[in-house]
Amino acid sequence: MAILITGVAGFIGSNLAETLLSRGQIVFGVDNLCRGNVSNLSSIIDNEDFSFCEVEMTKVADYRKVLSALYRKDPITEVWHMAANSDIPSGVIDAKVDLRDTFFTTFYTLELMKEFNVNVIAFASSSAVYGDHGDDSLVEKSGPLLPISNYGAMKLASEATISAATESHFRQAFIFRFPNVIGVPATHGVILDFVRKLKATPDQLIVLGDGSQQKAYLHIDELIDAMIHIRNCAQEKVSVFNIGAGDDGVNVQFIAEETVKLVSPSARISYGEGNRGWVGDVPRFRYSIDKLRQLGWRPTLSSAEAIRKAIREIATQEHAVDIFQ
Amino acid sequence: MAILITGVAGFIGSNLAETLLSRGQIVFGVDNLCRGNVSNLSSIIDNEDFSFCEVEMTKVADYRKVLSALYRKDPITEVWHMAANSDIPSGVIDAKVDLRDTFFTTFYTLELMKEFNVNVIAFASSSAVYGDHGDDSLVEKSGPLLPISNYGAMKLASEATISAATESHFRQAFIFRFPNVIGVPATHGVILDFVRKLKATPDQLIVLGDGSQQKAYLHIDELIDAMIHIRNCAQEKVSVFNIGAGDDGVNVQFIAEETVKLVSPSARISYGEGNRGWVGDVPRFRYSIDKLRQLGWRPTLSSAEAIRKAIREIATQEHAVDIFQ
Repeated sequence: MAILITGVAGFIGSNLAETLLSRGQIVFGVDNLCRGNVSNLSSIIDNEDFSFCEVEMTKVADYRKVLSALYRKDPITEVWHMAANSDIPSGVIDAKVDLRDTFFTTFYTLELMKEFNVNVIAFASSSAVYGDHGDDSLVEKSGPLLPISNYGAMKLASEATISAATESHFRQAFIFRFPNVIGVPATHGVILDFVRKLKATPDQLIVLGDGSQQKAYLHIDELIDAMIHIRNCAQEKVSVFNIGAGDDGVNVQFIAEETVKLVSPSARISYGEGNRGWVGDVPRFRYSIDKLRQLGWRPTLSSAEAIRKAIREIATQEHAVDIFQ
Repeated sequence: MAILITGVAGFIGSNLAETLLSRGQIVFGVDNLCRGNVSNLSSIIDNEDFSFCEVEMTKVADYRKVLSALYRKDPITEVWHMAANSDIPSGVIDAKVDLRDTFFTTFYTLELMKEFNVNVIAFASSSAVYGDHGDDSLVEKSGPLLPISNYGAMKLASEATISAATESHFRQAFIFRFPNVIGVPATHGVILDFVRKLKATPDQLIVLGDGSQQKAYLHIDELIDAMIHIRNCAQEKVSVFNIGAGDDGVNVQFIAEETVKLVSPSARISYGEGNRGWVGDVPRFRYSIDKLRQLGWRPTLSSAEAIRKAIREIATQEHAVDIFQ
């Protein structure tokens, strides 16, 4: 009996695969290797309990063929659907990017789950489904859900389709609304951006925006732990959970200063204007994880601690740790 | 300056076109005539302020060509997007029906609005976006939104995409969450079903379910009036409004008895079991229109009065009014 992870070669998928394998599961992984990379699977690619197939999930005939082949090895009993566009600004420029990579991947996964009689799905949704609610604390039943990016829109479309499919076809669905998640292998995000900028120009760091944009951050290790906890404990037929650090987060200035401290202590930081980095980005939000706490899980790291840990990991990944540290 | 109505040959679209024309607007209409019918446009088809084009909106090149031609007559300043699958059970059987007819029609309409610089959209959403919330009174900010039909899922996906597109491209969006709407030209629904059954077998009416399923109903005339009121008065960039009768509604037994009374008074009514008619149907829900009342609009008919009015209209449409009445 195997678990299928979609988007397995990405940041979340590769970490998830590693953890599930370490807990004795048989894991199948698919990825189109468009944003994911096989190098992210180096620690597990030789594990005999792991099988990887490259496939474009939006080509449903190819996807079906791959699942058939995997299914013959071991019956797939559960899908963890992590595949999505991870480049939010690209989806603001062209809505078809998230339509295809964030929504169609979900739609076809559900269609094939029905065909193959797989009846449990765990889904990487996003805080982006909420849109901009100002200072309100976002709980799972907050509404209206008015995403301001196509990424958020297609994550919400995916949630909706999963909900409808679960009503008529599946036993249970777990919908995780992710916060900003950090760690390695980093493929995008503010820390990686700062580290790379400092590697290129060690004497200065130019920050987009005024640095006041504040967000909560969760380390990838905690995210994986929380997802598995929800998977094992939540009882609703469609279980929706915010996952997050549970604090008010840190601002961009903090991240810039901490990155400079580790990577290039002599760099001067200069800020731009405004607190909204790019179209489609929610400037700040407050995110309640009370429902998750009540299920018995809580993070061990604050946003600030998670940021410091991730800066060290990403700087190492990028070979950018200051040699004098 | 013209208003484009999608799905103009359907129940809602044809009534809307008539009202907007009577108020002096230039109206363009498109429809694929799959569920809509040109006969629904008989009263307006010769109006020189009205232009109709048959087009499959999910074929974007065709849709673009039609909009170009219409745009040359008069610039389109606003879209009222009413096109959708109206056969909810068919979308439960095959998720691709609502994907195409309920969601892609929205997606391509938005893409073309961006191309043609149209920046106001009014959208026929649905109470189906809420899913099953039991006895809770549904307000616009209720959540989580977990639709139980693909129709509801693709209406929610459409809301989400409209929200994201409005953030980056449009001036204003109006999202109307429709209740059960009744009147003529009736194309589907419980009253039409009962009238047709009674025409076929005048001595009995067999009701699916136990007759206890309770819903609120709004007459089409009131719906159109409410939509236009919201369009003219609501101020939010993305304005979401429940539209409804604002009462607890009537049950199926009431509709059966009232239909029999008018169409075939001697018929015996027999009920089935259970209170959920078909997969994907929410058995009952309570629907708040407080936000709409605060905007200064309220219905003039109760659900019961709307049902009685619609039964008379639909029986007339079907030539089924009891000759002794």
